[in-house]
Amino acid sequence: MRIGLDVMGGDFAPKATMEGAVKAAKILGNDDKIVLIGQQSAIMQELERLQETPSLFDIVDADEVIEMDDKPVKALKQKPNSSLAVGFRLLMEGKIDSFASAGNTGAMLVGAMTTGVLEGVLRPCLMTALPRIDGGVCLLVDSGVNPDCKPENLYQFGLLGSMYAKCVLKIDEPKVGLLNLGTEAGKGNLLTSAAYQLMNETKDFNFIGNVEPRTLFNSNCDVFVCDGFVGNMMLKLLETFWYTTTKRGHTDEYLARFNYELYGGTPILGVSKPAIVGHGISSALAIQNMILQSRDIANANLADNLKVMLNK
Amino acid sequence: MRIGLDVMGGDFAPKATMEGAVKAAKILGNDDKIVLIGQQSAIMQELERLQETPSLFDIVDADEVIEMDDKPVKALKQKPNSSLAVGFRLLMEGKIDSFASAGNTGAMLVGAMTTGVLEGVLRPCLMTALPRIDGGVCLLVDSGVNPDCKPENLYQFGLLGSMYAKCVLKIDEPKVGLLNLGTEAGKGNLLTSAAYQLMNETKDFNFIGNVEPRTLFNSNCDVFVCDGFVGNMMLKLLETFWYTTTKRGHTDEYLARFNYELYGGTPILGVSKPAIVGHGISSALAIQNMILQSRDIANANLADNLKVMLNK
Repeated sequence: MRIGLDVMGGDFAPKATMEGAVKAAKILGNDDKIVLIGQQSAIMQELERLQETPSLFDIVDADEVIEMDDKPVKALKQKPNSSLAVGFRLLMEGKIDSFASAGNTGAMLVGAMTTGVLEGVLRPCLMTALPRIDGGVCLLVDSGVNPDCKPENLYQFGLLGSMYAKCVLKIDEPKVGLLNLGTEAGKGNLLTSAAYQLMNETKDFNFIGNVEPRTLFNSNCDVFVCDGFVGNMMLKLLETFWYTTTKRGHTDEYLARFNYELYGGTPILGVSKPAIVGHGISSALAIQNMILQSRDIANANLADNLKVMLNK
Repeated sequence: MRIGLDVMGGDFAPKATMEGAVKAAKILGNDDKIVLIGQQSAIMQELERLQETPSLFDIVDADEVIEMDDKPVKALKQKPNSSLAVGFRLLMEGKIDSFASAGNTGAMLVGAMTTGVLEGVLRPCLMTALPRIDGGVCLLVDSGVNPDCKPENLYQFGLLGSMYAKCVLKIDEPKVGLLNLGTEAGKGNLLTSAAYQLMNETKDFNFIGNVEPRTLFNSNCDVFVCDGFVGNMMLKLLETFWYTTTKRGHTDEYLARFNYELYGGTPILGVSKPAIVGHGISSALAIQNMILQSRDIANANLADNLKVMLNK
């Protein structure tokens, strides 16, 4: 696999991105190669600093940079030679098999859409992995792209999350739950009670019913479905709670797993090419894991598997 | 003040409720009296067990009990002699100044509505206090009654929360924030971006703009406004995270403040008489604090203060 990395993306780029790329390159097998996309001068400078040989990577020069506060659509148009725009062009041309960036999330989404939204997908979405007490992870879908949803959107988030769990995490019959106020059928707001009806009848995924946030870490549910507003609220609340406890010196091997660095990035589901968004404050470790995850998603051939599901 | 307590309400009633009542009675001043409402036999039995004299309290016999799984509206009609129904009757007749119960939340809401929704209030709501790192508390409104909201509902939650902070917590110019995906104006879903417009122009309360969940514990915002679905999701997530950390032996004076027992109950805002809902699993300490809070709300004369605000 040829794994594209936006070297210029993220608050600590290119230092952290290059360090992460070097770490990952030493873990990847011979069949995999990282394609560094960014300002050649910066890349070379970092390689020298890290005393690494360019031959570890393929390097594609992209002399423009999309900043965090650039307007997504505009940025991709007005900066055709930005690492982000070039990355997606290479992805479209099949010159890389997946593209990952810790840069401008909005621009990543827009870029991912340009690779094509899978036929039948109403809304692509973001998926975030959260640590379960039993050692596994559960997936939160949508974790932030779609603040306003219809029941059929939630239904599809369940399908997309289930397919990710099956293809990438290799879970046999992923359990899909609908995040709701209570476990009883009919509970919730207009959106979730209508979504419940749709999900309850499906044969497309293993729907286990309504689930409450209080079971997020200790249930056997693999995929938690919610709209992007609720998903993002929950993530930000977890983040602050984790920081609060850590700051106060409370940590152990479980709490440590709330460290976003371990989960690499957040894949965009429902588009035809693998695109992964990293946390803006990604460290070298986070970048390394984003690259490995990017490789796994490319290997899993998620898009093709989804096409089969969506068009059967 | 005459503070009504539903002795039969809660998973550990009447034991925990009576123990809590005794604790509270010893803290209350001479001007305040707890009115115990429930099965006289059970009350007497508990007083004997606790070796306390009935003269500590006023006692009103109510021989029926509304169970946790009873349908709210039906229950209040079909069990007119239940502690809950009797409690609200006494509240209406002015024989008690406030009523608190750790029983059936739905029935508490229905009962509170029968005391009259304040003129101008579109939807009564629930308010939950959360611990701030600086030692204070912040209020989450609505924390669970209104899963589907219109912008004007959120606007009013801001007003109701602000008035509570002012009248009960004695905060001068309570800062009201709108829980949202980002702090910039225009951020959010259709509901929050429309609510922002309403709140931004108001002179009814001190609106400080959009706030993110990541600032819940460490900002100077006093009132966090959200719809009841989001509010309830957040509370349940906090609950599970708190239990998880505590279970793993992580605790300190700050984390300990997430213990619901310290906050007593959850007041119902927007109705004409003070009604407080306790957590179903309320312990004696939680009941004690619910009674003290019930007293404070009665003293604050919240309803009359709200009337002024709503009809000016």
